[in-house]
Amino acid sequence: MTGRTAVTMTYAELPNKLVSAANGIDYAYREAGDGGVPLVLLQHFRGNLDNWDPALIDALAPGRRVVTFDNTGVGGSSGETPDTVGQMARDAIAFITALGLGPVDILGFSIGSFVAQQIALIRPAIVRRMVLASSAPEGAAGMHGWAPEVIGAVGAPQTSPEGYLGVFFTRSPASQRAGQEALRRMYARTEDRDTPTTWETREAQYDAVCTWGIPDHSLLQRPTCIQVPVFVANGDSDPMILPHYSHLLAGLIPQARLKIYPDSAHGFLFQHHAEFARDVDKFLARPGDGKAA
Amino acid sequence: MTGRTAVTMTYAELPNKLVSAANGIDYAYREAGDGGVPLVLLQHFRGNLDNWDPALIDALAPGRRVVTFDNTGVGGSSGETPDTVGQMARDAIAFITALGLGPVDILGFSIGSFVAQQIALIRPAIVRRMVLASSAPEGAAGMHGWAPEVIGAVGAPQTSPEGYLGVFFTRSPASQRAGQEALRRMYARTEDRDTPTTWETREAQYDAVCTWGIPDHSLLQRPTCIQVPVFVANGDSDPMILPHYSHLLAGLIPQARLKIYPDSAHGFLFQHHAEFARDVDKFLARPGDGKAA
Repeated sequence: MTGRTAVTMTYAELPNKLVSAANGIDYAYREAGDGGVPLVLLQHFRGNLDNWDPALIDALAPGRRVVTFDNTGVGGSSGETPDTVGQMARDAIAFITALGLGPVDILGFSIGSFVAQQIALIRPAIVRRMVLASSAPEGAAGMHGWAPEVIGAVGAPQTSPEGYLGVFFTRSPASQRAGQEALRRMYARTEDRDTPTTWETREAQYDAVCTWGIPDHSLLQRPTCIQVPVFVANGDSDPMILPHYSHLLAGLIPQARLKIYPDSAHGFLFQHHAEFARDVDKFLARPGDGKAA
Repeated sequence: MTGRTAVTMTYAELPNKLVSAANGIDYAYREAGDGGVPLVLLQHFRGNLDNWDPALIDALAPGRRVVTFDNTGVGGSSGETPDTVGQMARDAIAFITALGLGPVDILGFSIGSFVAQQIALIRPAIVRRMVLASSAPEGAAGMHGWAPEVIGAVGAPQTSPEGYLGVFFTRSPASQRAGQEALRRMYARTEDRDTPTTWETREAQYDAVCTWGIPDHSLLQRPTCIQVPVFVANGDSDPMILPHYSHLLAGLIPQARLKIYPDSAHGFLFQHHAEFARDVDKFLARPGDGKAA
């Protein structure tokens, strides 16, 4: 369970690993690819290692070390899930430090994108570039908690494929088909699956989401000090975090680029995994020119 | 010089009209098209009636009354150009009122888009929908005055076609060709041209632009109370008002839609006049559903 993984292994086949961090937490993680600046992924609400679409990780991995992990208290990691984005960021930094990684690229998705912003704010030296997928700045008006149909679907004690498909994919036949394919890829792995996330994780994470969404215009100034290049991406029909907030975030972060993907919802990065991975590749590879776009 | 203009007359042929407003100013204006909610256009820095690309007005006019005018002190209008966006907005309201127009649609371009925002803030009842072309919210960091090459080109005592093409169009052959065609259309009219704008207008308007750009994060809260649907549009390579600020504005205004036009600069709405007019048509015609996008 130590050492690096060969590039030829797909995400669905990667072993679960554990690393003990200085904060006393044992973090579950997987590593794909090799070389370059490591890309660390921060997962969505209630997600564990198995909730990354293997097609996306496999598209990102060539030429790059990609690390997925469970933050404190989530899935196979020990400890108790914290109820603030601030503590989640400290914990993610502890994991990155435990792996001995220097400045990394970060891809944060949904609540993971809030954690990514917070990492860039409290420990800028650890971040080279950042991808914020389905994100929003802290304090933005109108995002205090998710719409009833959204939290009703993905926040229920027992979640269902239908609920997932209704939030992560649009109603179009193309998007629904893409969703079913993503689910199939995520559930193809039958052995050594990650530990399911608990109700305690759900409650703590949703507390953190609601806290992040308490409206406070002054907090919108926070991301204006993020100096690294940032790629902000969203589905055009995301019901969980509206593209409106991606516009706002891209307008607040000085060096931000923005792309809104068509006919897609919260799971746009799984639905459009090939295109999104190409866009991420291009963004991470481009010279840092300090130009806003 | 009274009455409405036939739809068959192109913008280049329209007579200059004058209307006396309650504030004592005689406003120069032109009217194209007929029917529907009137669309009032607010012009860019140093521009007069002749600086609207006739191709754009002719594309907007079918089925709609389109009104262009010189604000106080500009071109053929009397008075002294004010040096604040606030006063420009009061003056524009005086003009709209003088024409007896009820709620109107407003298309503000560059400094005209600042005036449009201010109108929507101080007299919301007069605005049905709003198009903000090459716009930015008051107080946004990093836009205090234009870049030296921009103000050097369009702010010089004597402007030139080269300076205009360098700011309003990109360096690509396609954009430069579009710029030359737009200039040709604007200068095709030889009789009854509008009065050129003065150096006093240039100074007052640039004072207003610099004042609008004094950084103040708290002022970003202003557009969050704009309740009408807004279409925010920009060229992807606008050197005068970066698309970054369109992202920000679209993220602050609750009911905003955003489109960034490819390979275009400050004059994206002239370069892409057919596509932009179609987008404006669609935006003004769509049901007001209150959904941010």
